[in-house]
Amino acid sequence: VPSILVVNPNTSSEMTAAIDRAARAAAGPATRIATVCATAGPRSIEGALDEAVGALGTLEWVVRRQAEFDAFVFACYSAHPAIAAARELTGKPALGIAEASMALAVLLGHRFSIVTTSPRWKPLLEDAVLLYGFRDRCASVRASGLAVLDLKALPPDQLIETLVAEARAAVAQDGAEVICLGCAGMAGLEARLRAELAVPIVDGVAAGVKLAEALLALGLSTSRVNAYRPIQPRENVGLPPLFQTVYADPTP
Amino acid sequence: VPSILVVNPNTSSEMTAAIDRAARAAAGPATRIATVCATAGPRSIEGALDEAVGALGTLEWVVRRQAEFDAFVFACYSAHPAIAAARELTGKPALGIAEASMALAVLLGHRFSIVTTSPRWKPLLEDAVLLYGFRDRCASVRASGLAVLDLKALPPDQLIETLVAEARAAVAQDGAEVICLGCAGMAGLEARLRAELAVPIVDGVAAGVKLAEALLALGLSTSRVNAYRPIQPRENVGLPPLFQTVYADPTP
Amino acid sequence: VPSILVVNPNTSSEMTAAIDRAARAAAGPATRIATVCATAGPRSIEGALDEAVGALGTLEWVVRRQAEFDAFVFACYSAHPAIAAARELTGKPALGIAEASMALAVLLGHRFSIVTTSPRWKPLLEDAVLLYGFRDRCASVRASGLAVLDLKALPPDQLIETLVAEARAAVAQDGAEVICLGCAGMAGLEARLRAELAVPIVDGVAAGVKLAEALLALGLSTSRVNAYRPIQPRENVGLPPLFQTVYADPTP
Amino acid sequence: VPSILVVNPNTSSEMTAAIDRAARAAAGPATRIATVCATAGPRSIEGALDEAVGALGTLEWVVRRQAEFDAFVFACYSAHPAIAAARELTGKPALGIAEASMALAVLLGHRFSIVTTSPRWKPLLEDAVLLYGFRDRCASVRASGLAVLDLKALPPDQLIETLVAEARAAVAQDGAEVICLGCAGMAGLEARLRAELAVPIVDGVAAGVKLAEALLALGLSTSRVNAYRPIQPRENVGLPPLFQTVYADPTP
Amino acid sequence: VPSILVVNPNTSSEMTAAIDRAARAAAGPATRIATVCATAGPRSIEGALDEAVGALGTLEWVVRRQAEFDAFVFACYSAHPAIAAARELTGKPALGIAEASMALAVLLGHRFSIVTTSPRWKPLLEDAVLLYGFRDRCASVRASGLAVLDLKALPPDQLIETLVAEARAAVAQDGAEVICLGCAGMAGLEARLRAELAVPIVDGVAAGVKLAEALLALGLSTSRVNAYRPIQPRENVGLPPLFQTVYADPTP
Amino acid sequence: VPSILVVNPNTSSEMTAAIDRAARAAAGPATRIATVCATAGPRSIEGALDEAVGALGTLEWVVRRQAEFDAFVFACYSAHPAIAAARELTGKPALGIAEASMALAVLLGHRFSIVTTSPRWKPLLEDAVLLYGFRDRCASVRASGLAVLDLKALPPDQLIETLVAEARAAVAQDGAEVICLGCAGMAGLEARLRAELAVPIVDGVAAGVKLAEALLALGLSTSRVNAYRPIQPRENVGLPPLFQTVYADPTP
Repeated sequence: VPSILVVNPNTSSEMTAAIDRAARAAAGPATRIATVCATAGPRSIEGALDEAVGALGTLEWVVRRQAEFDAFVFACYSAHPAIAAARELTGKPALGIAEASMALAVLLGHRFSIVTTSPRWKPLLEDAVLLYGFRDRCASVRASGLAVLDLKALPPDQLIETLVAEARAAVAQDGAEVICLGCAGMAGLEARLRAELAVPIVDGVAAGVKLAEALLALGLSTSRVNAYRPIQPRENVGLPPLFQTVYADPTP
Repeated sequence: VPSILVVNPNTSSEMTAAIDRAARAAAGPATRIATVCATAGPRSIEGALDEAVGALGTLEWVVRRQAEFDAFVFACYSAHPAIAAARELTGKPALGIAEASMALAVLLGHRFSIVTTSPRWKPLLEDAVLLYGFRDRCASVRASGLAVLDLKALPPDQLIETLVAEARAAVAQDGAEVICLGCAGMAGLEARLRAELAVPIVDGVAAGVKLAEALLALGLSTSRVNAYRPIQPRENVGLPPLFQTVYADPTP
Repeated sequence: VPSILVVNPNTSSEMTAAIDRAARAAAGPATRIATVCATAGPRSIEGALDEAVGALGTLEWVVRRQAEFDAFVFACYSAHPAIAAARELTGKPALGIAEASMALAVLLGHRFSIVTTSPRWKPLLEDAVLLYGFRDRCASVRASGLAVLDLKALPPDQLIETLVAEARAAVAQDGAEVICLGCAGMAGLEARLRAELAVPIVDGVAAGVKLAEALLALGLSTSRVNAYRPIQPRENVGLPPLFQTVYADPTP
Repeated sequence: VPSILVVNPNTSSEMTAAIDRAARAAAGPATRIATVCATAGPRSIEGALDEAVGALGTLEWVVRRQAEFDAFVFACYSAHPAIAAARELTGKPALGIAEASMALAVLLGHRFSIVTTSPRWKPLLEDAVLLYGFRDRCASVRASGLAVLDLKALPPDQLIETLVAEARAAVAQDGAEVICLGCAGMAGLEARLRAELAVPIVDGVAAGVKLAEALLALGLSTSRVNAYRPIQPRENVGLPPLFQTVYADPTP
Repeated sequence: VPSILVVNPNTSSEMTAAIDRAARAAAGPATRIATVCATAGPRSIEGALDEAVGALGTLEWVVRRQAEFDAFVFACYSAHPAIAAARELTGKPALGIAEASMALAVLLGHRFSIVTTSPRWKPLLEDAVLLYGFRDRCASVRASGLAVLDLKALPPDQLIETLVAEARAAVAQDGAEVICLGCAGMAGLEARLRAELAVPIVDGVAAGVKLAEALLALGLSTSRVNAYRPIQPRENVGLPPLFQTVYADPTP
Repeated sequence: VPSILVVNPNTSSEMTAAIDRAARAAAGPATRIATVCATAGPRSIEGALDEAVGALGTLEWVVRRQAEFDAFVFACYSAHPAIAAARELTGKPALGIAEASMALAVLLGHRFSIVTTSPRWKPLLEDAVLLYGFRDRCASVRASGLAVLDLKALPPDQLIETLVAEARAAVAQDGAEVICLGCAGMAGLEARLRAELAVPIVDGVAAGVKLAEALLALGLSTSRVNAYRPIQPRENVGLPPLFQTVYADPTP
């Protein structure tokens, strides 16, 4: 049976639990899902520093459990540096939820918008859209002004209202025909948002799980040519023993 | 159970049979697949005229069987005009195999190349890449010089050799890390190509089926805002009775 | 004497008459103009389905009268699939009015905007702008909310007022310096719009006729290499006899 | 009758005579053509310095004869600074031959290439393609290595052979379907090149004349909003009397 | 000691004095600065005509004093034609203040906006951004509606207020994180603007001087391959004696 | 006096020493330079995993010494995640050598090429070029096939020969007019390369130091709006004490 490890790069147990629920809800009946969170790092990922600081504690799961799982989904809505690193580490499919949600969104309408949290994510996600090559299909990235941790702390109605307002503006003003939920912490909200909005709502966690299943079913995995070719053994200093083994013998 | 109608816009029964095999091989155990070909048109789709001439005979299947199927996959590797038309006709997912293959390919490597048949497809597929928004992720479109019907007529070894040569050139000279098979008639060849090449090979028919399943599982469908909003009843002349009903009552 | 067949891909006789007037007004004294409308299809072209459904009835004119005319202008403001198909069918110049209007508009100012009818046309024309390569010169596509058939049904003053409001917004907010009339049904309105607006107004029908004349005068015609090379004879099924002859002997 | 002043920004009388022949050959029977060359400057325009140095002697013609002519064509294959300046100076159509040739070339095939003279023109014309917004339709700019003045000095056969070789390479290697002659000094060569090549050959002088005629026939002229709005009277020092009048009273 | 000649392409002595103060304030203690203005031309550069008309009087300084100075900075915020011409004339660094300010701005934030003067500069600077390759980093070009000469004529408070309002809108509405002062006449205002705004303010004159110093310190100068290769001696007519020498012997 | 901390994100002492020499050679006489290497990580940075694994040991220097230095230069030729993280951590200028080299290269010629080491860096640096917004000015990224550590291990002549061959190809085939040295390990080679090649050679370490000096001299620093706004205190787990303090009180 296909097995997917969902890795949440932050250290919030509430968000990890919500991500796990969303992943299981999306997974096919035959798929085994496990969800873990970074072993070290801040409780939410709010930008580039948080990504860098939590990267080792995120990648640890790939190093430790790559024999056990068939694919890896990284539940941070960004071009998180752990995604590319994981592709180098393992020959198995490794997907971020941002790229996954965009890959589905383009099948559903002319352009999509991403509704995210803080103003910092707007430029960072514009960069992610650029890097992932979806610029021509992205109508806008809109920051709701929420903090990531608000998503678990605010009253649900207030949360939904804020996100609905941004999504409506994306449709009315930016030409969006599809909305991507721009934070892993929004996983599970899509049903309520669909009830309020007349456009498809794509959750990245669900998208990541389904796309990982699709790749596994087709026997497709990350190309090992150039960008993601296997890493080479090398001298290193100061690393935790687990990562010393990575450079001692990188064969996935 | 999810059901997908695969529509081959040309009128070749050999190609339809091969597409059907590829679609069934890709489909999950619970998915019902049916494959049909256009009721009118040329035996292969070699460009814009063939697309236009066969469009009605392709769309006929959507009109006739939209109540019966949950999603539609159009098995012509192009931005075939029937795809957008089908999205207007039905609220259900409608995917072309070109867009589907690109949406999976970007998850597998830095850039993909498309290996197609005749020199006419090179500019047409460059336009499709542009329209679908994958320009920044597409390393090249390469025409092998084969005709579409060669794919069923040539000795398999010669066919494989020709495609492998183009794919190798795409990797070595254009920076491709993933290869998309740029013709529905290549469906079923990916196993042999993978054996020869060190990069992922994406077949569009398989990609289309898996992505349709993913959308269905997530309850996602085409946005009905703007580009693909429902069509409006209108006077018309000279149309076959089936299409007269479309304009009489377009509600999907 | 140069002769141009203007083909209206919809089946509205009022619009065909208005297009004919605009074409004749634009044509040089030595040019022979004839205007026809599709032999089958909906009364207006409001999107991709309408284009596909009316394509055969539009192309029929090219097949039937290509010996008689020197050039073909397709009077639908879009990247209508009949345009590329006609270029394959005939070695003679074949122009759409959208591409023609943009080719003139760029000579008149820094950026142009397109003022069109329904919200569906906004994404479709953004795609056309992309395909025709004018993205860097296009300030915006603006949908007035009118239906195509409104253009012949509404009181002229109300029509003008609506279009003027959109055009003014394009100039003031989007940086447009030139306005393209984004529907064949607007042909003939440019004089009144010029009276209201301080920027050049380009009508596509007029642009198409003048550009066809220019190409004819210079002995220039569609390239027969790659994208528009002649079609090849092929087996086919279910086609009207006229199109059977196309595949029997495609030499233009 | 429409009248067009063709201004050659260099000071070569041979090139001016050849440009004049090409302009007259392209013009309609009712059009009055006059061709002049810059009153001061180098004998050929080989780059940005030559353009700047000859700009005043080129613009002088517009200042002096704007009442007498209906449109102006600048016969240097580049984004010559005199073109934009002339649009500010006069409300009448003012076209460069580079932009004109590209505006026609896109109507003839999927992509065009420009075959020009010295290696300096390759980057400069790539910039012109970018500025004019034709980047997505331009397959390549190819420098033949000829100097501008070679075009009048070399034996015709050698000249044709050199240009044909570059054009063939553009078609075979770069995907060009149309060739633009990238120097005013190539005007008149298109017949011989067409005999050698299977693709349309666009001469900018002819294109400029026909497009100027088209604009005049349609009553279209440069937008006076923003980029090309009329200049404002201003203090100035050291200018020739003719240009002092420009700043004294800029009304076109 | 490094020496930089700052050339103001207009003929306003007030602006030249302000530019000189800004250049000296920016220069390192060891750098020699001299500032001159065009010997002929309008008192302000408000568009393409002004640039062309003042080009010779600007380039005169490069011809005359190229042996005496190590680098040249052109103090007009645009892609002024004298910049490329100067690079051809001399092997020494030659920078425009627009390009210089953008090259520093991208080091300071995700995107910059340019706040400029008249509405004509908006399209012209959008073209400059495109040509200099900074399109993906430029949030917007905003015209304040001021005339260039207003910058020296208006009460400073009113001036600052106008510019602050545009800059604030760029940050709030366009996503700018950095502001470039889009006119040489704004040199010296950055301190007051920084006091009002929470984002970095880049003055082009200061940027040009520091970048020229940086290039000189690293022994870097303009590439003499292709775009800026040395000019070739050529026949010429009607030029001032100084420019005749340029074509007589162009070796820098 | 201005002080710059140069941080080498790998752990090779030879490379750190060479980087230090290059930084000191580039620095002005009044600038204080210190160069350090990551406290933990692999001996060379050969891709995304190495970047992620060494990020904490790189950022440690910024946390620890941000009070002591005025600016930070990251000596890895890439869009290393530590650069953006450092900008969030500190209000002071923080530059990567890749972005710095490109910002100078565009001032020197029409297009630059980057000559780098392994084939993995080609896609990664193409992404960096895209992110930094220099795509339109980058002629190519060329991988020499060297490993990073070869740069200190191979005989200098062989090294130079390999790099010169790639650089020559970039000039001759890709249209490069300027070469950027695409690895920190190439610092110090530019003199020998300039002797062999006729185009400017930009070393990123030198560029980073001079641009940091320029920003400091002008009082410019990273924008604290949006992308790089200060981080917020947050709960965290498993981090080294130094980084716990970062989240306890992030004020720089």
